[in-house]
Amino acid sequence: MREKCGVVAAAAKADVSPYIYFSLNALQHRGQEAAGISVYDDEEEKIKCYKGLGLVNEAFREIDMNSIKGRRGIGHTYYSVKISSPYNAQPTLVHTSAGDIALAHNGIITNSGELKERLMKEGHNFSMGSEEESMAFLLSDYLKTKSFEKAVKSLMKDIEGSYALTIMFNNRVFGLRDPFGIKPLCMGKMDGGYVIASETVALDVLGAELVRDVRPGELVELTEDGYTSYQLVEEKNKAHCFFEYIYFARADSVIDGKDVYMTRKKIGEQLAVEHPADADMVVPVPDSGRAHAYGYSNRSGIPIAEGLMKNRYIGRTFIMPTQDLRQKYILLKTNPIRSIVRGKKIVLVDDSIVRGTTMRQMVDLLRSRGAKEVHVRIGSPPIVAPCYFGIDMTTREQLIAYGRDVEEIRKKIHADSLGYISIEGMVKSIGIDRNDLCLGCVTGEYPIKVRGEKQRFQEKLEKWE
Amino acid sequence: MREKCGVVAAAAKADVSPYIYFSLNALQHRGQEAAGISVYDDEEEKIKCYKGLGLVNEAFREIDMNSIKGRRGIGHTYYSVKISSPYNAQPTLVHTSAGDIALAHNGIITNSGELKERLMKEGHNFSMGSEEESMAFLLSDYLKTKSFEKAVKSLMKDIEGSYALTIMFNNRVFGLRDPFGIKPLCMGKMDGGYVIASETVALDVLGAELVRDVRPGELVELTEDGYTSYQLVEEKNKAHCFFEYIYFARADSVIDGKDVYMTRKKIGEQLAVEHPADADMVVPVPDSGRAHAYGYSNRSGIPIAEGLMKNRYIGRTFIMPTQDLRQKYILLKTNPIRSIVRGKKIVLVDDSIVRGTTMRQMVDLLRSRGAKEVHVRIGSPPIVAPCYFGIDMTTREQLIAYGRDVEEIRKKIHADSLGYISIEGMVKSIGIDRNDLCLGCVTGEYPIKVRGEKQRFQEKLEKWE
Amino acid sequence: MREKCGVVAAAAKADVSPYIYFSLNALQHRGQEAAGISVYDDEEEKIKCYKGLGLVNEAFREIDMNSIKGRRGIGHTYYSVKISSPYNAQPTLVHTSAGDIALAHNGIITNSGELKERLMKEGHNFSMGSEEESMAFLLSDYLKTKSFEKAVKSLMKDIEGSYALTIMFNNRVFGLRDPFGIKPLCMGKMDGGYVIASETVALDVLGAELVRDVRPGELVELTEDGYTSYQLVEEKNKAHCFFEYIYFARADSVIDGKDVYMTRKKIGEQLAVEHPADADMVVPVPDSGRAHAYGYSNRSGIPIAEGLMKNRYIGRTFIMPTQDLRQKYILLKTNPIRSIVRGKKIVLVDDSIVRGTTMRQMVDLLRSRGAKEVHVRIGSPPIVAPCYFGIDMTTREQLIAYGRDVEEIRKKIHADSLGYISIEGMVKSIGIDRNDLCLGCVTGEYPIKVRGEKQRFQEKLEKWE
Amino acid sequence: MREKCGVVAAAAKADVSPYIYFSLNALQHRGQEAAGISVYDDEEEKIKCYKGLGLVNEAFREIDMNSIKGRRGIGHTYYSVKISSPYNAQPTLVHTSAGDIALAHNGIITNSGELKERLMKEGHNFSMGSEEESMAFLLSDYLKTKSFEKAVKSLMKDIEGSYALTIMFNNRVFGLRDPFGIKPLCMGKMDGGYVIASETVALDVLGAELVRDVRPGELVELTEDGYTSYQLVEEKNKAHCFFEYIYFARADSVIDGKDVYMTRKKIGEQLAVEHPADADMVVPVPDSGRAHAYGYSNRSGIPIAEGLMKNRYIGRTFIMPTQDLRQKYILLKTNPIRSIVRGKKIVLVDDSIVRGTTMRQMVDLLRSRGAKEVHVRIGSPPIVAPCYFGIDMTTREQLIAYGRDVEEIRKKIHADSLGYISIEGMVKSIGIDRNDLCLGCVTGEYPIKVRGEKQRFQEKLEKWE
Repeated sequence: MREKCGVVAAAAKADVSPYIYFSLNALQHRGQEAAGISVYDDEEEKIKCYKGLGLVNEAFREIDMNSIKGRRGIGHTYYSVKISSPYNAQPTLVHTSAGDIALAHNGIITNSGELKERLMKEGHNFSMGSEEESMAFLLSDYLKTKSFEKAVKSLMKDIEGSYALTIMFNNRVFGLRDPFGIKPLCMGKMDGGYVIASETVALDVLGAELVRDVRPGELVELTEDGYTSYQLVEEKNKAHCFFEYIYFARADSVIDGKDVYMTRKKIGEQLAVEHPADADMVVPVPDSGRAHAYGYSNRSGIPIAEGLMKNRYIGRTFIMPTQDLRQKYILLKTNPIRSIVRGKKIVLVDDSIVRGTTMRQMVDLLRSRGAKEVHVRIGSPPIVAPCYFGIDMTTREQLIAYGRDVEEIRKKIHADSLGYISIEGMVKSIGIDRNDLCLGCVTGEYPIKVRGEKQRFQEKLEKWE
Repeated sequence: MREKCGVVAAAAKADVSPYIYFSLNALQHRGQEAAGISVYDDEEEKIKCYKGLGLVNEAFREIDMNSIKGRRGIGHTYYSVKISSPYNAQPTLVHTSAGDIALAHNGIITNSGELKERLMKEGHNFSMGSEEESMAFLLSDYLKTKSFEKAVKSLMKDIEGSYALTIMFNNRVFGLRDPFGIKPLCMGKMDGGYVIASETVALDVLGAELVRDVRPGELVELTEDGYTSYQLVEEKNKAHCFFEYIYFARADSVIDGKDVYMTRKKIGEQLAVEHPADADMVVPVPDSGRAHAYGYSNRSGIPIAEGLMKNRYIGRTFIMPTQDLRQKYILLKTNPIRSIVRGKKIVLVDDSIVRGTTMRQMVDLLRSRGAKEVHVRIGSPPIVAPCYFGIDMTTREQLIAYGRDVEEIRKKIHADSLGYISIEGMVKSIGIDRNDLCLGCVTGEYPIKVRGEKQRFQEKLEKWE
Repeated sequence: MREKCGVVAAAAKADVSPYIYFSLNALQHRGQEAAGISVYDDEEEKIKCYKGLGLVNEAFREIDMNSIKGRRGIGHTYYSVKISSPYNAQPTLVHTSAGDIALAHNGIITNSGELKERLMKEGHNFSMGSEEESMAFLLSDYLKTKSFEKAVKSLMKDIEGSYALTIMFNNRVFGLRDPFGIKPLCMGKMDGGYVIASETVALDVLGAELVRDVRPGELVELTEDGYTSYQLVEEKNKAHCFFEYIYFARADSVIDGKDVYMTRKKIGEQLAVEHPADADMVVPVPDSGRAHAYGYSNRSGIPIAEGLMKNRYIGRTFIMPTQDLRQKYILLKTNPIRSIVRGKKIVLVDDSIVRGTTMRQMVDLLRSRGAKEVHVRIGSPPIVAPCYFGIDMTTREQLIAYGRDVEEIRKKIHADSLGYISIEGMVKSIGIDRNDLCLGCVTGEYPIKVRGEKQRFQEKLEKWE
Repeated sequence: MREKCGVVAAAAKADVSPYIYFSLNALQHRGQEAAGISVYDDEEEKIKCYKGLGLVNEAFREIDMNSIKGRRGIGHTYYSVKISSPYNAQPTLVHTSAGDIALAHNGIITNSGELKERLMKEGHNFSMGSEEESMAFLLSDYLKTKSFEKAVKSLMKDIEGSYALTIMFNNRVFGLRDPFGIKPLCMGKMDGGYVIASETVALDVLGAELVRDVRPGELVELTEDGYTSYQLVEEKNKAHCFFEYIYFARADSVIDGKDVYMTRKKIGEQLAVEHPADADMVVPVPDSGRAHAYGYSNRSGIPIAEGLMKNRYIGRTFIMPTQDLRQKYILLKTNPIRSIVRGKKIVLVDDSIVRGTTMRQMVDLLRSRGAKEVHVRIGSPPIVAPCYFGIDMTTREQLIAYGRDVEEIRKKIHADSLGYISIEGMVKSIGIDRNDLCLGCVTGEYPIKVRGEKQRFQEKLEKWE
């Protein structure tokens, strides 16, 4: 679970773990806390699981990928601040009477608490107590009497929330996407096999061709020769997470037919229309705001310049020496180029503002290096509500835009002007119908029922048979 | 599982993890592959588990024992050559509808295969597929309708084999010993609490007084103030593993009322009676044969001398440089003292011979340093059959005494004479009735039914109500 | 030594090691192999040295910067593929009769072989045999009879090559730059002290103001209150390394009065004039070609787009799984964005071409993702000769431009057209007189005598008094 | 330096590093802080050095011994509590005009301060400032005009103190022992080569035959075919450290013709004569007092029993959990066997008492487990003065025997009686003339001049030509 995890599945004529390893590296931006690979060992006739903490490269440092036998497998990169043991990483592997089940999950199951309670009452014992264990247990129950696809359909009736899953059932390998298609999942064809992954960049590194996205509500089984589709569920509307386009996904991915880079650029262009600025220079916040900034510059005619340099070596594990220097950390991460900003009116472009702290530091920094004016332009609407299907924001109070109007936010971040893209402008730039996007965090209305929150459509659709 | 694991349980007025850590260190000889501690966190109202690979000290290197809150807990040291991940270490923790269950096990469940199959059919899903998971699942099922002690009694009807267990059920902590008392388990009282452990040495390091051994078939619940006993099952005979006295246990332990050091010394004395030698010097194999050698010397009047020195620094993780030097490894581990052995007739005393390779190397070594004669005396009868309740010997063929008489063995180990203690002599030295010992590995007759093996008593006792 | 090392020196009212640690992080791009800090311990009255392998953050993982006492110190980041032990990292610390001497060096001493031989003949014994040890030994000899500044002047007569040095002599701390100013070195004033560093970015992270560059041939002594300058040597011409502006330095640095980012942008503009292209899109090679690409786009009017995405997580320590996948490594590092490149005529801009292998892979990659044409534009003239003062290129044969004309190179890298900036164009863009730049690697004529190579000025200048 | 370091040298027809590695393991008891190996690389024509922290096995964990080329080499195990970096480990390698010099040292140079000062004045610069660097520098100076053996002779005139050295000079390899033979050094012949080491146990592991001890004042050069002896210096008397026989050396070594085990046993016998006891049982302090205890039991007729068990797993790196449990540490290390000690009058035998803390804890422990009386017998005379040639005891005040008579010590350690062996008794047991032993720490009179201390012989012998 967690918003940004990356998942992979592969079936090939050769051993798949090197391929999965490669594609997990391409999904590294979706989770740096842990990584895992499960493969089916034909000889021992069971699923084996390998997990480790840290980047993919670190997690598998002591494992020789070439020694792992198995032509079907799945993989996972884990995003969290809380993981303490590789044991809690994914894939989650469970041995059942029906056979071995392994799961890799991107998303959040909103009714996992009730499910766990119900499963325990029914006699299931949890090893970790995770959402993924619950899903595996449900599957195992349904598999006693049903085919795999029917079992999955039953599972989907039980679970609510977001899920892009790769699943192994003994030597079979699958991809599954929730009925609203909240989280991305796509399928590719490579030399001698097929692959499913969170983003197309994971196909690109394998030299695989994008076949198409896995459809909302669709289960896909992969073999080395092809794939079989089971459209288990069909909702009237989709609820694709717009934040994937804004920030989560890598700019070189294509999600649900929409090019991420181009979307960001169009958002930048739209921003320039909605919030023009009398300025000398467009400066992106590196690297998150770069594509949006290109668009803003393009449309506004204001030249773009890399006025903020990022220190690429300050990573996850940086150790601050003294309390005293801690406030200078922003200087270590980001440094304005004086020759660009001195005496200039700057348009500073980023993808979003969550708490606002870093943005204020960057505005201050630009001024301290001589910027005359700093006009902030943001590629997403104000984030005013929590995300229940991905991002880990527990309270509205932490959001700078919650209960504040734009002018109040502007003052807090010390900007000369502040412009957020409108919801309409953003929707248009993405090019997906507003009713097919999840806009929960910017509207407070959610596509799925969440206790205490407004639901998008009054009448709940009859779910499915 | 595995023969030599160490288990601990503690209930105290203060946080118990430092105490468990201490006593696990005293049980280090029972398992060096991994270690784990489970405690009940009163605040979070759940059992937490901490595990790591290697010696106790290494396994918990990065965990501050003082930061672990919880006044009830259990611990385990793991013996195996196969463990690859702390995940597979013990205690095994399972979350059930009845509550959290954690188990630490010393012993082998001989019908674990069937149990696992049955549990899977009943809908249980396994995370590791271990014996301990099976036991936890059985417990969880019985706990739906029964008190803890009744649930344990039901569990005992299901499982066969050897087990000395420490168990947590939410914030309650227990010790349990199989009906035959195959593996040791004892109870002590310390300042402000009670403790259960595999051996008395684990009580000694806490300054705890031995209360008594946990009885075969007995479940004991500990609190900080005392203990409650449930004699769940009572067999007519016991089947204490004689090898604990010979080799497994530390010489400073007392097991089932018998002092291990004294037992070994008596065995040495008995050996001197059964197999006298015309020799100049008694030399122990360090450290395993030392107590037996003292006894042999004592009775025979032949002076004892430490003719073999052991290099204490050559440990588990030693790396051999070249193939060429590999045969010299014995020289690195053990070195004869020339002044003691040169020109002498030596009685070389050890506890047992399994495969015979090391013994032959030591006999050769003594000769190469000038020993005139080497008379080998062994503190256990010939090991002719597998152990199904502890030691990991899969095939009879690996045993030097299987299918060979003593003279044939003598030749293979290059000794001038060879004497094993008789079964009777050994039983007398231990001081426990022959019918109350498990002698399976030296007789081929087992106290519990094992497929394809002879059982000790023709008629199976009516098990119990 | 080695081209890209970073050096720092600081004198302050507070302990300096946290400051040095911070500024070394800003110089991380100048060396990732090892890092070291030397400070003068006032209490113990000696220089202490702390070194480690890897990134600055890794090298000092187990050292608490706050516990290092000392208000004067120097630091170093080490660039090399060959270092195996922190012992060989810098600063190099030597205890002499004159006192403790520590050195941190960026550059290459071209006559180090002869110097070492001479010093050994004179009775000096080497611990590592490095250039820095030689320099420390020479200093120690001169210090027997001379003041520090005079000793340094004598040292400068002995050594040839490039050197930007920070030096400690007991509790005194200095910066020194070679007479030609080949490698950069600048000085800043921070709150409560002064600092010297390879680049201004190392001042920026401390919130320090740039005072000025250290002058070629100048020795500067720092105290917490100010600095003293000794202009020991003055050459008629300088020989600033042009490659610092092209590639080595961080874009947000200012070197010898020239802004690196602006220089790169101007080079891009000049490239557009010298080598226009009929194209749809300017695409930078990330991150090295970005500033040049902005310039090219700006002048040519061809829009810029980030057509190549870089995977930021594939670092120094990446482990390739199989031989088979090794050729796909480029795909893991760099991924073209299809929507940008498909069907487009691309101008691909980078700073330089050394061997040409990566450039050819990138051209091929762009074509495979649908680029119609790929026009390569390079921000430096063809590299035709070795660098003796910095870059580690041992043989001309490895250089793609050695012995090939532009058309031949174009074919080898599979480009539709290829344009290198002219030497004149580059010199103009930098804005420093051609006679004050070292252009050795693009002209084959060197500012300093190198055995077997042409020297720039026929008559050697009378060196100095 | 430091008392207990181990040194090795080898010359063979095959690569020697695996042999050195093996023999260093046998000398592990002489130093566990660090280890190092230097070999001469024939191809590169220079000495290479490999060092690491920890046990030999740990120090070379990441180095493949089989990949180190070189048929001549030396090795070292380092004893110290202060080493922080492998850089400070030995061998110490110096590159000089005469060639490469590497040194491995056991002992202490008492005039190293003056030597260092003199060498610095003469222009030598120190990298570490160690005694070994001083010795290498002196050698390098003499080698300018002298043969190696003459250079060593000159070195010996300069240095005072104890030294058993192995030395490499380019591809030549040597052993050297100080004129008084304070520290042990012996020579062996193995298959295809010769070896020198601190103790014979290091020869034993190689299957090497002891040729003889290196003589005091002798330099020995090894080749694969034999050795050459240079008796450079000859003192009238020797000063063999008696503590090697009592404690430092491994019991299975033979030093200067005397068997260590036998010596310890004889000391135990002599103790029984000098200090008889009315007791039931002789109990050794494991493992240091075992051989002495055998002797005591042997002579007194009082049976010996292993009344104290040692936990073999509590090693150098043990982490104590809480302050509270720290006082129970002795229980973790050592556990009395109740059945042996209960109700008994015990003779507790150990090799020596330094501070007395541990001895008092053990006496208390025995009593707490029921011992009726505890009579302590010590195999060395009271230690009343510092050792300047080996053991690191800085102040007399830390010695329990300094300024206290035996009765006072007895009270402090809570013993019923206390008997130290007499100097005469000990000397007789060792079998070396009293005038040929260093008894400094038990007499306060030293064989070599030490500032502020009494010297053994009034008139200083004319040193040598």
